[in-house]
Amino acid sequence: MDKHIDFYFDFSSPYGYLASELIDTLASHHGYTVNWRPVLLGVIFKTVGNQTPISYPLKGEYTQRDFARSARYYSVPYRMPSRFPLPTQVAARAFYWLQDQNLEAAKTFAHLSFRALFREDADISDVKTVLALASASGADSDALAAVLETQEVKDRLRSEVETALARGVFGSPFFIVNNEPFWGADRLDQLSRWLETGGY
Amino acid sequence: MDKHIDFYFDFSSPYGYLASELIDTLASHHGYTVNWRPVLLGVIFKTVGNQTPISYPLKGEYTQRDFARSARYYSVPYRMPSRFPLPTQVAARAFYWLQDQNLEAAKTFAHLSFRALFREDADISDVKTVLALASASGADSDALAAVLETQEVKDRLRSEVETALARGVFGSPFFIVNNEPFWGADRLDQLSRWLETGGY
Repeated sequence: MDKHIDFYFDFSSPYGYLASELIDTLASHHGYTVNWRPVLLGVIFKTVGNQTPISYPLKGEYTQRDFARSARYYSVPYRMPSRFPLPTQVAARAFYWLQDQNLEAAKTFAHLSFRALFREDADISDVKTVLALASASGADSDALAAVLETQEVKDRLRSEVETALARGVFGSPFFIVNNEPFWGADRLDQLSRWLETGGY
Repeated sequence: MDKHIDFYFDFSSPYGYLASELIDTLASHHGYTVNWRPVLLGVIFKTVGNQTPISYPLKGEYTQRDFARSARYYSVPYRMPSRFPLPTQVAARAFYWLQDQNLEAAKTFAHLSFRALFREDADISDVKTVLALASASGADSDALAAVLETQEVKDRLRSEVETALARGVFGSPFFIVNNEPFWGADRLDQLSRWLETGGY
């Protein structure tokens, strides 16, 4: 049996960032691998009919407090970005292009991108920032720059988002293992139990 | 220092029910008591501008699955009610009237009401059901029947909901300890850490 977890996230999702720091260790502990799958929450929220939690009265203030508190709980460095939420399609397109060439470089790029946004307050919606992060991940940033605006790269991301929606993904982070869905960094404990027991 | 947790919930909230089965043991482990505070999510959702999670595409299906799976995770008996969500103002009014007379009877009534809905599929929006549950809790159900429609009892609940909103309560379950808010049964681990450490 192919033991893998599909890990869906948006690069501007704080809870997605927290999960990105935890999921590989959790998965490997149970002998699973992780397929990283960036998506666009803006597109997904339109389908679901909701919005980023920070846009709601009361819930918005709480959520910003919870982002930081949850990061401390999981011992993950975190600061609230000054640009939030911000467009992440460039980073997501770069990720899939990288992934098709080098799985490890793509994962490194994802970690660097999340950390740039949630530790260094970088503007990862900026193409120049994305190219620099790709370069730091060991990728050929000139080749990436040449393909980023091609229809093929755009279609690839669109297709990934459509597939995610078809599989029921409606938030970030979102995990699917053998068709069982788990939504939220706060479901990592349940996901771990699921991997341990094969279902409960 | 008064060591207590305010526990806000709606009697028709599945995650509120799960928390109701866990919170007293968690609190007493840390030397805290729990103030139970039923509220009306319908009123609160109007203020926040959102809806019950089951009403959203994709999220609705997932949430119903997660209700049952989370109940198994916490080893709490659960079945999805056939009436859901259902009005809970009668049960909430009864609770506060009971609480003013006998704190323990009110807590017993709350447990019986949650279990009637989420184990026996009872219609706890029905006054007769609420009176029977109050009677089973050791309360004077004739006296309760006589006051349930009074303005005083209605005003009491309205005031509790307004206070909850003023304190930032936007969902169920919602916990506040020394002004620190925690939303969701999935924040019980963080709440426990908070009680243990005095903040993190």
